[in-house]
Amino acid sequence: MASYLITGASRGIGLELVKQLLELPASQVSKVFAVARNVEIDAIKELVQKHSDRVIPISASVNNTASLEKAVESVKGKLDGQGLDVLVNNAGINGLTTGGIKGMEVDQLSQILDVNVIGVQRVTAAFVPLLEQGTQKKVFNISSALGSFALASYIADMPTDAYIISKTALNMLTLRWAQQYADAGFTIAAISPGWLRTDMGSKDADLSVEQGVSEVKRLILESGKEKNGKFLNIKAAKTDDMMWEYDGKDIAW
Amino acid sequence: MASYLITGASRGIGLELVKQLLELPASQVSKVFAVARNVEIDAIKELVQKHSDRVIPISASVNNTASLEKAVESVKGKLDGQGLDVLVNNAGINGLTTGGIKGMEVDQLSQILDVNVIGVQRVTAAFVPLLEQGTQKKVFNISSALGSFALASYIADMPTDAYIISKTALNMLTLRWAQQYADAGFTIAAISPGWLRTDMGSKDADLSVEQGVSEVKRLILESGKEKNGKFLNIKAAKTDDMMWEYDGKDIAW
Repeated sequence: MASYLITGASRGIGLELVKQLLELPASQVSKVFAVARNVEIDAIKELVQKHSDRVIPISASVNNTASLEKAVESVKGKLDGQGLDVLVNNAGINGLTTGGIKGMEVDQLSQILDVNVIGVQRVTAAFVPLLEQGTQKKVFNISSALGSFALASYIADMPTDAYIISKTALNMLTLRWAQQYADAGFTIAAISPGWLRTDMGSKDADLSVEQGVSEVKRLILESGKEKNGKFLNIKAAKTDDMMWEYDGKDIAW
Repeated sequence: MASYLITGASRGIGLELVKQLLELPASQVSKVFAVARNVEIDAIKELVQKHSDRVIPISASVNNTASLEKAVESVKGKLDGQGLDVLVNNAGINGLTTGGIKGMEVDQLSQILDVNVIGVQRVTAAFVPLLEQGTQKKVFNISSALGSFALASYIADMPTDAYIISKTALNMLTLRWAQQYADAGFTIAAISPGWLRTDMGSKDADLSVEQGVSEVKRLILESGKEKNGKFLNIKAAKTDDMMWEYDGKDIAW
């Protein structure tokens, strides 16, 4: 029995992860806190109707510390003296840099860093006291293989410079947290969810949202302390038209 | 004969680099643009008195795009139809995160990213048209081995989380520029200057500013296209009380 908190829960990977976690029995997933700026959307309302006892929508923005402090108070109230078990920092934004790196607007870079890196810092710092009281002490940051130096030569021309730089920075943020919370029994890891057919990933992506998130869910459920400070990859059978390989092995930073 | 532009030129590594470049003959170093927010300081005035024909102080902030656009116009005027040959992005800030990663204030992280990462983007994007007209087409970003994933396990407890994350992000920014400007004949690399006894590095550091900067200067002068997209390390004889090794070999990201 474990409680989960997922940010960016109103669409894409986050929404699908909330759905798939709720499909597991209550004996395994007792509560899912679905955090997004706007939780007043049909998809979340439907989940609440279906699983009113287990899914709790929380309106908060990863850009806004005050909204996160309020969110901590609501979550605390609902947990009724228990800790939070698993945090998934999934909220993130992308942006095209069509003019190449020279054309990367500083406002865009600044905004993407504020959500994808500083946002994860805001959320993790806010919820770590509740996680310390939890039984699993797991934090997973949804990153991207695009942020890996080891894979950089394959994606030199990809017009998402700001996104790539933000994921590299997120990976180091993840590693710093993992190093400093290892002794406290935490498992803190980055996950590359694969290139999925979300709004952000586009229709051309390698895998369906359902398939990718099913793997993300597996990694979240299966990964213990041996995965602290690692960069996890999903597993999927290779087909000819896929851009990436999903071999399930840890990715080199 | 080459022209150089150094940011963060009013102190530490930047000031010493301006000095050491000016010690080279005019046949090798024709002009040094010394960029800092405040160039009205004694150390720069003395350099202007001594080398009035070769050193040009330029007041600009790496946080401020408008000030950099003005700087480009001044530099252009002084270059008299020639291009700029070498850009050294040296301006950077540090900050302690004494409470560990949990205590890392988001304002601090945001400010350090704005100087150390976004600042380099502002400067490089502003000056790349002048560099394209130069004969050497070199850009060196002063980074830090602290930003390397390969070395991360040695510095888990170092209370400079925001600085570390910013240098990791700067390294990926450097690599993106290097990849996209290789075909145009550029050499774009990150340099780890060593742990030097600047104000930022403290008295406990491994090497004097003079020794470290002498090596940085050597790397700048010697590195050609074969070093594009690399992370360069200085070379210094090992002594017992040194924290780091300076073996002159490229550092793993």
